[in-house]
Amino acid sequence: MTNRITELFNIKYPIIQGGMVWCSGWELASAVSNAGGLGLLGAGSMHPEVLQDHIRKTKRNTQMPFGVNVPLLYPEIDRIMQILIEEKVPIVFTSAGNPKTWTKHLQDNGIIVAHVIANTKFALKCQKAGVDAIVAEGFEAGGHNGREETTTMCLIPQISEAITVPLIAAGGIASGKAMAAAMALGADGVQVGSRFAASKESSGHEAFKQMIVEAKEGDTKLSLKKLVPTRLLNNEFYQKVRDYEIKGASVEEFKELLGRGRAKNGMFMGDLAEGELEIGQVSAMINKVETAKEIIDDMISDFISTVASIKTLSFK
Amino acid sequence: MTNRITELFNIKYPIIQGGMVWCSGWELASAVSNAGGLGLLGAGSMHPEVLQDHIRKTKRNTQMPFGVNVPLLYPEIDRIMQILIEEKVPIVFTSAGNPKTWTKHLQDNGIIVAHVIANTKFALKCQKAGVDAIVAEGFEAGGHNGREETTTMCLIPQISEAITVPLIAAGGIASGKAMAAAMALGADGVQVGSRFAASKESSGHEAFKQMIVEAKEGDTKLSLKKLVPTRLLNNEFYQKVRDYEIKGASVEEFKELLGRGRAKNGMFMGDLAEGELEIGQVSAMINKVETAKEIIDDMISDFISTVASIKTLSFK
Repeated sequence: MTNRITELFNIKYPIIQGGMVWCSGWELASAVSNAGGLGLLGAGSMHPEVLQDHIRKTKRNTQMPFGVNVPLLYPEIDRIMQILIEEKVPIVFTSAGNPKTWTKHLQDNGIIVAHVIANTKFALKCQKAGVDAIVAEGFEAGGHNGREETTTMCLIPQISEAITVPLIAAGGIASGKAMAAAMALGADGVQVGSRFAASKESSGHEAFKQMIVEAKEGDTKLSLKKLVPTRLLNNEFYQKVRDYEIKGASVEEFKELLGRGRAKNGMFMGDLAEGELEIGQVSAMINKVETAKEIIDDMISDFISTVASIKTLSFK
Repeated sequence: MTNRITELFNIKYPIIQGGMVWCSGWELASAVSNAGGLGLLGAGSMHPEVLQDHIRKTKRNTQMPFGVNVPLLYPEIDRIMQILIEEKVPIVFTSAGNPKTWTKHLQDNGIIVAHVIANTKFALKCQKAGVDAIVAEGFEAGGHNGREETTTMCLIPQISEAITVPLIAAGGIASGKAMAAAMALGADGVQVGSRFAASKESSGHEAFKQMIVEAKEGDTKLSLKKLVPTRLLNNEFYQKVRDYEIKGASVEEFKELLGRGRAKNGMFMGDLAEGELEIGQVSAMINKVETAKEIIDDMISDFISTVASIKTLSFK
């Protein structure tokens, strides 16, 4: 398979592993890249020196292209950018910030830049900033999300019509069927988060992975809308958030409830009751812990048979 | 094109026009059926004698199969069912109620029955009740919606894996691209609401149709969750609902705010400020008022070219 995304990143399959907090370290990123996708380190949960260590380990463990996802609101952002350039990271996905700030600087240093958005307005801003690709993330995605609540089904065709740069669909994609659907909607590639969060190589806590595997329909909800809309998995912390939402709690009350370190405590340390567990709606369809290679191979074989079955839908 | 849905309903294209309150009378249903889709009358906003009149007019205006959508919580449900049988309506879509109650009775009278659901639990209940087809409606759909907030991208593959009866996808579908995506996800057909609500033959108020055409990304939100989750278009009434949600208003306060007749006042009478305007998220992509035939022809031609472009995504 060759298209604009495989050519841009020089990868075999147009499958990008989302750079997630607490789940995507060097083991996952290198395994995904070795399996033919694009592995991303999630800088959002790493101190600069930890990130540097993960970049070096990724380089030792794969000869294939890999990347780093960087939330631009990160406090030590200048140091992070310096490391990415010094370490000659080939690809950077930026998110949660203005794409104008860093895109040109990274590109001037030979780095391919993609930026993550959730609406057409920001997609156009990204294109104007000269990004090489855009990730459009739908309402069903895990973790931080857009305020418009536009689903992948509605978002991808709108962004696809508005922009000319390569488009990666995210949100609700964990199978070859969803990958084929995203491409029918106008995407050139897909970003997969939740299924890789539950993978063998994920650095997420084993108990968190098990909880993803057991998650059922309706077990995630877009929550914390008065702070940053975040899709959470149902647990005791989530129940408290929901009670606050029902009673109309204030921004300050939400901030106090959330506190600090809950995401790490939940996803990395395994505090399933009180941790902040970020995962996508598609977790309801994830039923086992697999290796990154098993996930990619399964998605590709499912994609091939889905495309073949769509071909039979012709007119008589 | 022939598949389980075209064969079940004896229609040319697997496109069903959603039976919507205040928008889908005999003019729309007969126009859709004449154009090769399945037109549905929306009984939810019709008194029994009005429905009977619309059924008769539909029969006079099309020789093709058509149907009626009936919310089972309708107060005069027994009278409605009697009319459907007396008038020999060939197809009935039931919703908002228990599929066990009426399915067999309708089928015993020669009627094909589909039921609308938004989660796997109810899909299985439908199958057990013996329905001929299931409509699975995602979070992005307009009007009343499920509590799980599962999007079409996540819902369709789950339902498709769980059931064996033909599956119709609804929510976010207004183009051939989305139709191809829905079929990749496992659907046999699609139900289209919003685009037909804005069609020339829709009985919705012209000002409402114009507002759908002008709707932008983020202009609809799933609202009134303390009553029945309902996707509303942004207007003055919606702003009040939103303020109530932010302050955590009670069920009683929401009921008082909603009052009675707001849906009719908005969608049928054209009170764009204070009316309850129910429409899907995909309204952001609907940019003109067209005839039902133009909509179906455009969807089919878009579907054909989308399927053709997916075919080029093969492996080298």
